[in-house]
Amino acid sequence: MAKGYFQMKTGILTGGGDCPGLNAVIRAVVKTAVHQHKMDILGIIDGYYGLINNKMRILTLEDVSGIMPRGGTILGTSNRDNPFNYFMIINGKKVYRDVSDRVIKNIHDSVMDALIVVGGDGTLAIAERLFKMGIPIVGIPKTIDNDLSATDVTFGFDTALMTATEAIDKIHTTAESHHRVMIVEVMGRNAGWIALHSGIAGGAHIIIIPEIPFDYDAIVKKIFERKGKGKHFSIIVVAEGAKPKGGDVVVKRMVEDGTEPVRLGGIGNRVGDEIERMTGFETRVTTLGHIQRGGSPSPFDRILATRFGAEAVHLVAKGEFGKMVSLRTPDIISIPLEEAIGRQKNVSPDSGYVKAARMVGISFGDI
Amino acid sequence: MAKGYFQMKTGILTGGGDCPGLNAVIRAVVKTAVHQHKMDILGIIDGYYGLINNKMRILTLEDVSGIMPRGGTILGTSNRDNPFNYFMIINGKKVYRDVSDRVIKNIHDSVMDALIVVGGDGTLAIAERLFKMGIPIVGIPKTIDNDLSATDVTFGFDTALMTATEAIDKIHTTAESHHRVMIVEVMGRNAGWIALHSGIAGGAHIIIIPEIPFDYDAIVKKIFERKGKGKHFSIIVVAEGAKPKGGDVVVKRMVEDGTEPVRLGGIGNRVGDEIERMTGFETRVTTLGHIQRGGSPSPFDRILATRFGAEAVHLVAKGEFGKMVSLRTPDIISIPLEEAIGRQKNVSPDSGYVKAARMVGISFGDI
Amino acid sequence: MAKGYFQMKTGILTGGGDCPGLNAVIRAVVKTAVHQHKMDILGIIDGYYGLINNKMRILTLEDVSGIMPRGGTILGTSNRDNPFNYFMIINGKKVYRDVSDRVIKNIHDSVMDALIVVGGDGTLAIAERLFKMGIPIVGIPKTIDNDLSATDVTFGFDTALMTATEAIDKIHTTAESHHRVMIVEVMGRNAGWIALHSGIAGGAHIIIIPEIPFDYDAIVKKIFERKGKGKHFSIIVVAEGAKPKGGDVVVKRMVEDGTEPVRLGGIGNRVGDEIERMTGFETRVTTLGHIQRGGSPSPFDRILATRFGAEAVHLVAKGEFGKMVSLRTPDIISIPLEEAIGRQKNVSPDSGYVKAARMVGISFGDI
Amino acid sequence: MAKGYFQMKTGILTGGGDCPGLNAVIRAVVKTAVHQHKMDILGIIDGYYGLINNKMRILTLEDVSGIMPRGGTILGTSNRDNPFNYFMIINGKKVYRDVSDRVIKNIHDSVMDALIVVGGDGTLAIAERLFKMGIPIVGIPKTIDNDLSATDVTFGFDTALMTATEAIDKIHTTAESHHRVMIVEVMGRNAGWIALHSGIAGGAHIIIIPEIPFDYDAIVKKIFERKGKGKHFSIIVVAEGAKPKGGDVVVKRMVEDGTEPVRLGGIGNRVGDEIERMTGFETRVTTLGHIQRGGSPSPFDRILATRFGAEAVHLVAKGEFGKMVSLRTPDIISIPLEEAIGRQKNVSPDSGYVKAARMVGISFGDI
Repeated sequence: MAKGYFQMKTGILTGGGDCPGLNAVIRAVVKTAVHQHKMDILGIIDGYYGLINNKMRILTLEDVSGIMPRGGTILGTSNRDNPFNYFMIINGKKVYRDVSDRVIKNIHDSVMDALIVVGGDGTLAIAERLFKMGIPIVGIPKTIDNDLSATDVTFGFDTALMTATEAIDKIHTTAESHHRVMIVEVMGRNAGWIALHSGIAGGAHIIIIPEIPFDYDAIVKKIFERKGKGKHFSIIVVAEGAKPKGGDVVVKRMVEDGTEPVRLGGIGNRVGDEIERMTGFETRVTTLGHIQRGGSPSPFDRILATRFGAEAVHLVAKGEFGKMVSLRTPDIISIPLEEAIGRQKNVSPDSGYVKAARMVGISFGDI
Repeated sequence: MAKGYFQMKTGILTGGGDCPGLNAVIRAVVKTAVHQHKMDILGIIDGYYGLINNKMRILTLEDVSGIMPRGGTILGTSNRDNPFNYFMIINGKKVYRDVSDRVIKNIHDSVMDALIVVGGDGTLAIAERLFKMGIPIVGIPKTIDNDLSATDVTFGFDTALMTATEAIDKIHTTAESHHRVMIVEVMGRNAGWIALHSGIAGGAHIIIIPEIPFDYDAIVKKIFERKGKGKHFSIIVVAEGAKPKGGDVVVKRMVEDGTEPVRLGGIGNRVGDEIERMTGFETRVTTLGHIQRGGSPSPFDRILATRFGAEAVHLVAKGEFGKMVSLRTPDIISIPLEEAIGRQKNVSPDSGYVKAARMVGISFGDI
Repeated sequence: MAKGYFQMKTGILTGGGDCPGLNAVIRAVVKTAVHQHKMDILGIIDGYYGLINNKMRILTLEDVSGIMPRGGTILGTSNRDNPFNYFMIINGKKVYRDVSDRVIKNIHDSVMDALIVVGGDGTLAIAERLFKMGIPIVGIPKTIDNDLSATDVTFGFDTALMTATEAIDKIHTTAESHHRVMIVEVMGRNAGWIALHSGIAGGAHIIIIPEIPFDYDAIVKKIFERKGKGKHFSIIVVAEGAKPKGGDVVVKRMVEDGTEPVRLGGIGNRVGDEIERMTGFETRVTTLGHIQRGGSPSPFDRILATRFGAEAVHLVAKGEFGKMVSLRTPDIISIPLEEAIGRQKNVSPDSGYVKAARMVGISFGDI
Repeated sequence: MAKGYFQMKTGILTGGGDCPGLNAVIRAVVKTAVHQHKMDILGIIDGYYGLINNKMRILTLEDVSGIMPRGGTILGTSNRDNPFNYFMIINGKKVYRDVSDRVIKNIHDSVMDALIVVGGDGTLAIAERLFKMGIPIVGIPKTIDNDLSATDVTFGFDTALMTATEAIDKIHTTAESHHRVMIVEVMGRNAGWIALHSGIAGGAHIIIIPEIPFDYDAIVKKIFERKGKGKHFSIIVVAEGAKPKGGDVVVKRMVEDGTEPVRLGGIGNRVGDEIERMTGFETRVTTLGHIQRGGSPSPFDRILATRFGAEAVHLVAKGEFGKMVSLRTPDIISIPLEEAIGRQKNVSPDSGYVKAARMVGISFGDI
């Protein structure tokens, strides 16, 4: 059992996909705990895996010194270890077991007074179940996708947006110099936030998001419209969760024709194939991938992560559990965990962002 | 007189200090005007100077193509030309004259139907006077200082914050490796927004802002406190408008003693001198200066500038004049110009940002 | 015919794939021509396409003002238009024709005294043929791949290296936090320069380049070696031209087994599939793609491009044609075009770079 | 005494001003030592201070994991502690003493077999004296100023150049939008390398370096020449070591006139005052300061630092002492320390860089 310096001891774990700002949260939690509340922070290694397998260590001020500008999480994480459905090999067989009792035992054995869980929807849903089983938990929301309705925005989104916008900036001049259709596929799961924002900021001509089903004809129309005005190139930003109206015509056509795609992979590649086929224009696809999850967090994300971390410790100190910290601009508030989870936030097709995008001439591939 | 393509014609000018996002505004205004409203945009050269001296040209889609990622303003600006108090040399004498009638004549001669003015408090106050004289004006707020109370935030601030934070990041490792007190003076006029935010994001140990008068003893105490914990370096972020309690002791002392300062200049230098004198620690001062006003705007600033620009044209099209666009998160609204000007927004010492900063151990040099 | 200001007139075209620094070359050519030699510069639009179709315009100092920091080329380019093998549709049939006589006629009609060709190996080989037909040509080498033996280095490479290294940096923390094998596929055609340099700079554990055929067993051995030391993650940088010893085992196995790949595409994806299959470790692949060709050129590339441009005009002024400018550190020299083309520069497996990489523990997947 | 794992033990210290790439050197030294030579590396804390005061610790692979992208030095440094002239307070008096015998005793007591010293000219001169006293030393050159003649280039310079160029880029658009003379003072001690390179890369109009004494009249002539062509702004890059022909006229004039400067400080400020006085144009000065010494090292610097570190360990393993590693492009060689020190490298006014700069119209303020 990890021995600390103070009477009170609070655990912290980071779960789910990588997200810039996790280290800023950990740093704020440790600093606030030590400076304000004479509380020890017990870092749990590799998310729920560490809780299940009892891997923890006291985090000192020295441990968190200088970590704010760094991507990743010094605690490690794991996206797959769920205490209620834990993968094990027993007698050579792969099985999934509920090991939540082990988690509760480990928490009690560590003499932890509270647990701060930093994660996305999946991680927080597990936290809520643990809270219902009696663990005093405070949640901190985290996702680059910005798809949690319970908070105005999460840390990580602004940095991902910067990375995506920088990439589109780089591709812009090539598209223009080479008269090409350039497609950039960005992350976002089932939400179009990163695509919408990076598309506007990157000066895209077409933005394809899950919330507005697209039509290949509309895309092609926009490309030819631009060509008619002497603009022989187009930038298309595609959210990974985007879906064409009437199902995936590219795959359908391929099956029928027995033709083979030039590129296989995500929706970006399929859009690239179809547009090249329909227009005859040279088309290039870039799938940004994991660089969107890394990098030094932006100032906005560092500040939000710091405020979330400080507030979470504050809630622990006040004994307010089963809560999640949340940004209601400009305030940090707390809301019940059970109200926070399972509610996806999507781009509204009528939102001010979409309207402004249309005003400056951006097509969403819908008309 | 500049001839355009459409019936309606709207002017645009950018005034005041440089600010990342101005080109994004101009681009959005032109794109929205042409794509949505069949309206010409008449670019006025060098702010009010161009209005006074009739320097204008029609802005085409081509003119604004590719300008969003660039700092500065393609229209030029001027911080000093005020139509109500215009500097001239008449008969060899320097005089200031009210030339607002000339401005109104030029506007009428150009067959301008409306005027969009992009600027900070000073520029918009002039716009409001012109509006009262009958010019149909829409304002767009702009400042890196974030000190306008009429909008949640202005474009330019996020980019300035990034530049300042990056600089503090760079200085951080040197401070640590060399065991030095490093002072970074940032902009912000009479408000502490840039200092507060970049200080939190850059991991500063002490933040000095105009809203919280500082005490040299409190700063020195914090430095020694850190030294006591084995931290032989400190980062201090100082807002250019910061003021010590009880007046400028450094200058006072110098006058009394007849001693000379090691460095003269802004408050950052004076703080550096005094701390070096009081602690004996090697102290280095960096005044970031104009790099905070330049650079490619951040995605946030590009998007906000785009929304402001699109909305301003929308107001013109609806005939709603004497208004200023404003961000009330997440919406873009409009408010009367006269309510918008002359109201400074300052950091509240009780705000969530200051509290979070104190929680993670940052001193404001006050206790 | 484009009319200029001076007696002498020199054309410039940019050909081939995009490359940061092209605008810096164009700017230096125009500035040197105007300031030093009272020479007009005739910009040819879209590479050889413009030469074939007579698309040119005089470039003024104003045209090149402020373009140095921008990616792309203000002249446009084309990778496919070859005057000796030009694609045309005649009577509904697709044919390739030699239209070099048209090029020569256009050059004479434009009263061009010389032609500066900026391009990679393909573009310069065409230039050499035109030179042999009597066109007074000076070449400037350009490629992000650094695979030209006739110059120490070309502009574009340093910027591509920065983009690749930044991406690896971003992926590094995610790999570490998530205990993953992360593969980054970078450009370089048949040479391993970008992979080798970005791999060393990005702290990769394994670098796979065309010049050192790799072995899947060696890669897997290294990954397990790291795991044995408690390092549950590995970063692998793969050059797009890399080839496994004994042919593409992944494709072979797939054909034999009838199994399907998780990811299809470049060598990076295949390496990812095979390693995931062999180790059972979660593996993620990022193919950086076209972002490596864009972005603001690094200071090194701006300076080299400027020196190349200035020297090329100098050669024109001296009447030294059939030459290519070249960096022989620290000097800019010129060499005959015919000696420059068709000579690829590859990484030597015995070079100091490879040796240093091995010394710090990097594996090349060969032993 | 620090205990290691292997038989052989080599110390390493970093001395002098901060420089991006120091951590990359330390990492390469430790990795090469452990992976290739089964050698322990003993990190000496805070440069010669640690050698004098016996502060050292074994550096493990874990200690250097992930440090390459970070500025600063994990070992700390000190610019002032010289074993041959060490500041002490004895009986309340400040004295300087030769404590080299203490250094030699500490080295022997630590059972160190060799010592790697990373530093600039001053640090290496001390190393050479220690070598002559029998300490087996290998040197690694380090300076952002690039002013060592014994190596083609040092790590740190490329990163400083990037920081300076980025700052000039940011200031460029402001200068243009506001019609201002903008002066940027950069580092470089008595050499003009950073100013020359960042000036060319940043598109400066005037570059002032120590190697080419400048004339205020020539600067003013250039500014007016530009104004005559409709360019109402100018960017001037000034090296901190620059000197006007005929001595410091600004200070002279001030003494004679009894006038006061608007800005005091470095040469950049004085140039700003004088130009504003002579031209009447609004002039702004930015002194970049310590941000030039920080930041994540560029890929070039990371690679060069890695090669230097690996080669230094190699020299130790071969028993070749009294040497310094050096870049003779593209090779890493070694030269005797005594030949390396005390030889400054300056910009030659006839070099290709200066000539190319003049060709594109840059003035050096000399004619």
